[in-house]
Amino acid sequence: MQDAFPESPTFVTHLECGMEHDHYEADQLHGLSKAGKPLLVKYDLDGIKQSVSKADLAARPATLWRYREFLPVRKSENIVSLGEIHTPLIPVPRLQGGQGQVWIKDEGRLPTGSFKARGLCMAVSMAKELGVTKVAMPTNGNAGAALAAYGTRAGMKSYIFCPGDTPEINVREIAAQGANVWRVNGLINDCGKIVGEGKEKVGWFDFSTLKEPYRIEGKKTMGLELADQMGWEVPDVIFYPTGGGTGLIGMWKAFNELKEMGWLTGKLPRMVAVQASGCAPMVKAYEAGEEHAPLWENAHTIAAGIRVPIAVGDFLILRAVRESNGFATAVDDDKISAALDECSQKEGFLMCPEGAATYAAYKQELASGRVSPDESAVLFNCATGLKYPLPPADQSIDINEPVDYSMFD
Amino acid sequence: MQDAFPESPTFVTHLECGMEHDHYEADQLHGLSKAGKPLLVKYDLDGIKQSVSKADLAARPATLWRYREFLPVRKSENIVSLGEIHTPLIPVPRLQGGQGQVWIKDEGRLPTGSFKARGLCMAVSMAKELGVTKVAMPTNGNAGAALAAYGTRAGMKSYIFCPGDTPEINVREIAAQGANVWRVNGLINDCGKIVGEGKEKVGWFDFSTLKEPYRIEGKKTMGLELADQMGWEVPDVIFYPTGGGTGLIGMWKAFNELKEMGWLTGKLPRMVAVQASGCAPMVKAYEAGEEHAPLWENAHTIAAGIRVPIAVGDFLILRAVRESNGFATAVDDDKISAALDECSQKEGFLMCPEGAATYAAYKQELASGRVSPDESAVLFNCATGLKYPLPPADQSIDINEPVDYSMFD
Repeated sequence: MQDAFPESPTFVTHLECGMEHDHYEADQLHGLSKAGKPLLVKYDLDGIKQSVSKADLAARPATLWRYREFLPVRKSENIVSLGEIHTPLIPVPRLQGGQGQVWIKDEGRLPTGSFKARGLCMAVSMAKELGVTKVAMPTNGNAGAALAAYGTRAGMKSYIFCPGDTPEINVREIAAQGANVWRVNGLINDCGKIVGEGKEKVGWFDFSTLKEPYRIEGKKTMGLELADQMGWEVPDVIFYPTGGGTGLIGMWKAFNELKEMGWLTGKLPRMVAVQASGCAPMVKAYEAGEEHAPLWENAHTIAAGIRVPIAVGDFLILRAVRESNGFATAVDDDKISAALDECSQKEGFLMCPEGAATYAAYKQELASGRVSPDESAVLFNCATGLKYPLPPADQSIDINEPVDYSMFD
Repeated sequence: MQDAFPESPTFVTHLECGMEHDHYEADQLHGLSKAGKPLLVKYDLDGIKQSVSKADLAARPATLWRYREFLPVRKSENIVSLGEIHTPLIPVPRLQGGQGQVWIKDEGRLPTGSFKARGLCMAVSMAKELGVTKVAMPTNGNAGAALAAYGTRAGMKSYIFCPGDTPEINVREIAAQGANVWRVNGLINDCGKIVGEGKEKVGWFDFSTLKEPYRIEGKKTMGLELADQMGWEVPDVIFYPTGGGTGLIGMWKAFNELKEMGWLTGKLPRMVAVQASGCAPMVKAYEAGEEHAPLWENAHTIAAGIRVPIAVGDFLILRAVRESNGFATAVDDDKISAALDECSQKEGFLMCPEGAATYAAYKQELASGRVSPDESAVLFNCATGLKYPLPPADQSIDINEPVDYSMFD
């Protein structure tokens, strides 16, 4: 059996503030930049290009570690993995609006059942490489589940704080996977405050969204993998459920790195940030032509994963949307529910609510004309639909009475 | 983007009764053999060998359709797929008993979150190829969920009957994915009776375990894929949670086909059928030296997926276990729970109860000496742990009071 993670040259040169572009040393622990903004990891892209070819990649196992040269982990021994396989790209012809092909990228196949695994496997691996032993995070659910799994796998202690309305299944899976978890009778920012204070008091490393630089690098693999799966081509449009936006930022970073290397030529995908009408700060800022998105008051939506009223990476999300000639759009909760039902009833595929929001947005924007029926589109299903409450099914048969087979016609 | 499922030569020659070895024509609808036993699909293995090489396979996408020449579907247009990716083989060094490496093969990554997807994608594809439009099945849960998804995807009507104590999540996901589902106030055999009677009365095709020949062929891909992932090597021992046994029978068939082709040389894996102490018909028959396993009365275990009191493929399971120099063994429910906890707390990996039974069995048989600490072992985790109830997590923090950070030390 081949060595799971062979050693590899790595190409990180430095980190850079996403806003101010000042530089930070690689191979050091970092949080936010001096300006309080997310740090972006920079690579020697020429070095990558000289070191590895598309054919080399194709010969490696179909996991996100295939893209090792594009990733920050220096030593293989620090890779913390639970089997980050390529997620399938499933054609859904019955959902297509026209000639443009539509696929669901099913991120629910990753460890712990969500795309959060991509970011957290990378962040935990880097934390291990840089000597961290205690990590903490505020979470609405799936990110905490991923941190719990990878933290335990790495032999770290993890401390996870959930708002009062976090789904029970998430709190339980966090605990089951060896983390310390607390429900907090407040919102995600109350949880974030506890983590922030504990950084000094307890010595935690803060794993909040975008407050450490490597979750973006993990999420970047969605873009690398998608291009790879499509034969180093890209779809016309990507619909992405957008809360903190790490994935959208990461994918856009990936496409641009590939373009700079000459591995992608031609048009990059239009990035569409999908939010819920009850929590749409990016949509509001996009429409107002703003660079930042202020706190959205009274956020509410059934798609809890995109109920993120304020995002430290707001300007990076809005930049990606605008640079790509995409847009930000909001869908109503009833449209999300209807989209979820339509997909499972027509294609047998059970999306999560946030994933269903992307299909609702696709339909809405076909109708609005912002997307053409001839454009190909990828919808990101960010987690397994099995983590979410399903409607009851009430039909029953009493074996003490004769079965009326005519009811099956 | 490459054609998802290119046309391919196929090599099915005929079908054969697993007991009497009489022949049945390929490309016809079949249920059980004349003797009332499962039919096995036979291939021109020389033809496969001349048609395809290991290197050819390696160049194809990492899905179960990579093994197209080893599978029964004749025409690509009949393939019904929801993204049957290779499931990861995850090393679990903290669970090892000695020098022999131990892996979990995580079947929870397949569509609908369980290994049932392998069997049902194949059976539904073949049903489509042979003109079936209405299918029915008795199920304890996961098989029904897989049938619902693939049936809907294929445009078929599916009718699914669940015993009263089927987990609510399974009944709901079956309905959500477009199937017709009923709870029946009885056991799995009561459900099977309804399906059996409806065959004539409604015109259903019967998808009960091993009553149609192609679910075995789908499950066979566990063996093909495992050998492929290990570089056309095999582990010393395979621990497999055994209810109806389709997977164990399928894997053993795969290994023998590969051996006959010369693609595997040397010793095949020892197949260990893992059952629960509260429902262990195969263990009893194995120990008594019997070829068949009579109905186990009052079956009970927390691992519902292996609560199968009687199996039409009993003799095939026992034959595989004996031919491979393996054995059948039963584990207590409390050992299953402890194994589940141990794996998630030590490795961050949440098994399903049936998967946890395989780790409980591994430990038990290391202690008994039937397995050596130097033997390499693969444990099959047959479904995502997220489908099963998790223990509550009760810690909470009141933000109206000062947080005592000393509690985190």
